[in-house]
Amino acid sequence: MRNVIVTAIAVGIACNVNAKRQDQEPIKVIEPIVGLDQQKVELGKALWFEPRLSASNTISCNSCHNVATGGVDNLPSSIGHKWAIGPINSPTVLNSDLNFVQFWNGRAKDLQEQAAGPIENPLEMAFTHDLAIGTLQSIPQYRQWFESAYGSKSFTINEVTDAIATFEKTLRTPNAAFDQWLKGDDSALTKEQVEGYALFKQKGCTACHSGPLAGGQMYQKMGLVKTFNTDNPDIGRAAVTGKDFDKYVFKVPTLRNIELTYPYFHDGSVWDLQEAVEVMADIQLGQPLTKDESKKITAFLRSLTGEQPQVTLPHLPPSTHTTARPQI
Amino acid sequence: MRNVIVTAIAVGIACNVNAKRQDQEPIKVIEPIVGLDQQKVELGKALWFEPRLSASNTISCNSCHNVATGGVDNLPSSIGHKWAIGPINSPTVLNSDLNFVQFWNGRAKDLQEQAAGPIENPLEMAFTHDLAIGTLQSIPQYRQWFESAYGSKSFTINEVTDAIATFEKTLRTPNAAFDQWLKGDDSALTKEQVEGYALFKQKGCTACHSGPLAGGQMYQKMGLVKTFNTDNPDIGRAAVTGKDFDKYVFKVPTLRNIELTYPYFHDGSVWDLQEAVEVMADIQLGQPLTKDESKKITAFLRSLTGEQPQVTLPHLPPSTHTTARPQI
Repeated sequence: MRNVIVTAIAVGIACNVNAKRQDQEPIKVIEPIVGLDQQKVELGKALWFEPRLSASNTISCNSCHNVATGGVDNLPSSIGHKWAIGPINSPTVLNSDLNFVQFWNGRAKDLQEQAAGPIENPLEMAFTHDLAIGTLQSIPQYRQWFESAYGSKSFTINEVTDAIATFEKTLRTPNAAFDQWLKGDDSALTKEQVEGYALFKQKGCTACHSGPLAGGQMYQKMGLVKTFNTDNPDIGRAAVTGKDFDKYVFKVPTLRNIELTYPYFHDGSVWDLQEAVEVMADIQLGQPLTKDESKKITAFLRSLTGEQPQVTLPHLPPSTHTTARPQI
Repeated sequence: MRNVIVTAIAVGIACNVNAKRQDQEPIKVIEPIVGLDQQKVELGKALWFEPRLSASNTISCNSCHNVATGGVDNLPSSIGHKWAIGPINSPTVLNSDLNFVQFWNGRAKDLQEQAAGPIENPLEMAFTHDLAIGTLQSIPQYRQWFESAYGSKSFTINEVTDAIATFEKTLRTPNAAFDQWLKGDDSALTKEQVEGYALFKQKGCTACHSGPLAGGQMYQKMGLVKTFNTDNPDIGRAAVTGKDFDKYVFKVPTLRNIELTYPYFHDGSVWDLQEAVEVMADIQLGQPLTKDESKKITAFLRSLTGEQPQVTLPHLPPSTHTTARPQI
């Protein structure tokens, strides 16, 4: 009985620390998502791995946002149809529903809108929405799945992208060491990581990298204090707004699972995490870090790697004689 | 009590039918594999999905032998490094350990030997064994996994391909409707499928397509009775033996999961299963089929689709600063 009481008190204290710590810290815990429609999730998973959404029938969503590798392809920029090299680094799909907008330049308001893009991008899947729908409509199993999930065998790109977005929402990575620490477990971080996190706040990184994503909540200019030198011609948000003011302004990327999502920045030019930290402090905050400081911050960043999603490969239904053939 | 006895008698009869049917039929049941070393299986699965075994870091074993689509890529021939088009149709990985040799021309004696090929094929993964080993050695998690599975942190292409082959052995597809029928369940096949199977034997298809794979046990000339017209320049087994006699001789492919593994033949020229059946009967057996006959045989072939493997995506460990960068 005494043990029970002691435990109860200890839990009470931990919860109290938890509530206090979470309230006070700029980075918040990531929780798994609940309440999603499982039929949409399963359909969305099939579509996520569906190479027949691409002209060549070889490129799926997972090709560039690989769930086996932190939700990215670990390339400076992705390889698409006929080995086209994409214009910008592929952002991670992990926890991506928590971004305030989608794409580096924020041109999609949510995951559903985002999912429509790559299918018809000639440098990516190089298909069209009409052809993609035609392919799915030609396969009886898909017609049945869509009917079960959306109530009709007739469907459009809206249901396709809604299902994909619903699946993507499952790709949260909870229980990172940092989250355990946020919840009150002091032993979850090393001394170096705690010091790194203190530096991360002290240097001003949390001005942009805050919230559950440690990012993904605002736009910011790449090269705020000093120019960012790059060969990448992307002008950022200015391409959406047409305003000169928005040149080289990009969505602040998440730092969740950052040790897995190299190479870094919108041009994928930096492969080493500590180097990326040093570049950011220099050109965004105007305060160069010592090696010891950047090492500690990097150690903290590694505590943001969460439990990776358990995804069982779907079994995609076969094509029929009315399914369009791959364009190779 | 009476029910128990009746059930026991019924099971006894079914087992008896089962033993008799299996003994008498040329196609045998596929069973799941047991007794594999789970550490090798898990390591092999990571390597199976490992894009860093390719020069571009984008092509894995699963790219061309996709477990989500019957163990193939559903292309006439695969797309490799820099969009190179391969010379021959990718065979399925499903049940592939039961093939008597590997590759269409049998140039590898087993799965381990086969697995070494694509990594260094310039049209496929376009890497070298040395570079692949260097990449894996640069990643501490892989060194640990190899040590756990093979007893040493030092490893060569032999352990890499052994692990991949061990994973591949798990990719059996048991419990096809046809297997249930072979085991004595008369209701597992439709009347059309039973008639199709009878025709399949009667026309002589089982001369080549027998055993648990319904194939994969012998070589045969493509165009035994009549010439097979194709643009594909592959000369088959003659490339291995140097004998004119072996020109256009290929390993007889499995018919397991054949409805999923279109397009058909070594040149991937035929997309429709019924058409493939008709071509085979004509050029291999010299006996054209009526539409009714080929329809029934096709219906039987669809009964060879087994339970597809449940494969959860691995989480691949991140590269380090000593890992070679992708060659794009």
